[in-house]
Amino acid sequence: MADDKVMLGHGSGGSMMKRIIDEVFFEAYGSDELLRGDDAAVLPALAPGERLAYSTDSFVVTPHFFPGGDIGRLAVCGTVNDVATSGARPLYLSCAFVLEEGFPMDDLRRICASMAEAAREANVRFVTGDTKVVNRGHGDGIYINTSGVGALAPGVNLGGAQIRPGDAVLVTGTLGDHGITIMSCREGLNFSADIESDAAPLNHLIADVLAAAPNTRCFRDPTRGGIASTLNELAAQSNTDITIDEEAVPVRDAVLGACEMLGYDVMQVANEGKMVCVVAADEAEAALAAMRQSPYGRDAALIGAVAAADPTRGPKVFLRTAFGSTRILDMLVGEQLPRIC
Amino acid sequence: MADDKVMLGHGSGGSMMKRIIDEVFFEAYGSDELLRGDDAAVLPALAPGERLAYSTDSFVVTPHFFPGGDIGRLAVCGTVNDVATSGARPLYLSCAFVLEEGFPMDDLRRICASMAEAAREANVRFVTGDTKVVNRGHGDGIYINTSGVGALAPGVNLGGAQIRPGDAVLVTGTLGDHGITIMSCREGLNFSADIESDAAPLNHLIADVLAAAPNTRCFRDPTRGGIASTLNELAAQSNTDITIDEEAVPVRDAVLGACEMLGYDVMQVANEGKMVCVVAADEAEAALAAMRQSPYGRDAALIGAVAAADPTRGPKVFLRTAFGSTRILDMLVGEQLPRIC
Repeated sequence: MADDKVMLGHGSGGSMMKRIIDEVFFEAYGSDELLRGDDAAVLPALAPGERLAYSTDSFVVTPHFFPGGDIGRLAVCGTVNDVATSGARPLYLSCAFVLEEGFPMDDLRRICASMAEAAREANVRFVTGDTKVVNRGHGDGIYINTSGVGALAPGVNLGGAQIRPGDAVLVTGTLGDHGITIMSCREGLNFSADIESDAAPLNHLIADVLAAAPNTRCFRDPTRGGIASTLNELAAQSNTDITIDEEAVPVRDAVLGACEMLGYDVMQVANEGKMVCVVAADEAEAALAAMRQSPYGRDAALIGAVAAADPTRGPKVFLRTAFGSTRILDMLVGEQLPRIC
Repeated sequence: MADDKVMLGHGSGGSMMKRIIDEVFFEAYGSDELLRGDDAAVLPALAPGERLAYSTDSFVVTPHFFPGGDIGRLAVCGTVNDVATSGARPLYLSCAFVLEEGFPMDDLRRICASMAEAAREANVRFVTGDTKVVNRGHGDGIYINTSGVGALAPGVNLGGAQIRPGDAVLVTGTLGDHGITIMSCREGLNFSADIESDAAPLNHLIADVLAAAPNTRCFRDPTRGGIASTLNELAAQSNTDITIDEEAVPVRDAVLGACEMLGYDVMQVANEGKMVCVVAADEAEAALAAMRQSPYGRDAALIGAVAAADPTRGPKVFLRTAFGSTRILDMLVGEQLPRIC
């Protein structure tokens, strides 16, 4: 395609739009459904009794490219992971771009190639899409929305409300990598060569854990707000107290150092390739072993436990510190680090 | 909620975000699935053999409010209509906002109320969502993405590829209303009090047409690029020629006047509440009668016919003018009127 920058006409509904669709999007991740060119994708019936799992996310991260990934990889992994938390097998993705006039076409191609690669890894395909172009100065290069649909087998019922006292709390790997990577790119800081985003599709890992630990209660993606917000949501949904052990939480030294220097609480920093997982205590070891067999779960750890909430004060999350004291771990209030995903 | 403007913290994943979700989004259109608060909605199995229909659209229209609708109504109707073109019964919507810091909370509430109303009319519900906030100057107040999932009964196979020579081409009402409304709002022109957007959910109309005319080949939403782009897409998909009769195409006088004054071709102006419909010729009257019984189809008309394409030059769309001459009706090339949806 001759055009080296996105122009308003690429969002027109006319022949310029057809060109960017054919030569950029279909080239990267065309599927039978996309190529068919109707207004809606028609997809096969699921197996009898299979329910639908459905989720959406928009991605507005800056910079668009960063160590370990880019906005396209995030847009695939984020939605795949959200669908997978239900226990479903993610199958189909939608993809909608809001492009800013002047965005480099080569960057768009690179992002689309990254989306295609992440989709292949997750074994999902793009079946429907949309492209809008906004005038220069009214966007920020590229925003991507994806939504995802998955098939959920009968009898699988995961969710925060399933958590009960006595359960074990696991995490699939080190915390804070994504948030600190974005922050250091944006501010031009260079803490360490080995800090990079953890963006990854976790659907295969989740399926393995469910097979190994059928009494898994829930998975939750600790993205914005970090594990602190996630655990507070889970405690509220299940009306329980959750206590985690600071020393058990896996954090890379370089990430911890960056957090200390910047005054961030790593428990509130975003992750894009990690899951918090709550399981029946007697299946914790089996779940951990399954996680550690995945390339994305090698640093998985048991980090805490669930107890009944004190009815006089409601559900709380506690952090037992390295010094043996215990403090309340609150949800993030406002914004620590905008636009990390 | 005390906050009268959107702030970065409303997209943080923390407690401010919980507040905007609870007090604005759930207040307008909370569903059991949204209130459950997990990362993915879990939805009942479809009936045996029912396929999925799936579509997505982002909405970036300016101004956000206009005669006949607003960005929220568009965001619901656009996706409902795309899903419905497959012949499916739209069931569920996702909704993802990209808000700009400083966007008035009252405008957001008004948009959400409008979305809720359109969803009620279409008999669909919001089951999953996402909220991002971008810094002031990096957005344009509000962008909305919706995706939609519907259930498609066995045996229904609509699409541009089903069109065959001899078929009749119908349109469900007057053309150009939406595009000219947006243009006149934006430029401060005032052509006539009775020009307003046609944004409407057409799923009930489509179901009625399918019941009355089982040999319907396809529906297509003539949005960006107008009916000219839609007909060219359909001709290409079915390798046919399509000829339409200019005098048969319903256009309001005020819209026609505005197009003449501005040099627009009404065939290339966007619509948001209309369908192009191709049916077997012997069912055209039945389809028209069904359309005219809908509040959104009172001006439905038979506008043209399909013929075999000349193999030496490929599929074309022709317009027979009021003067009896015939000209090629081309797809819009670049951009006529940016950001009309």
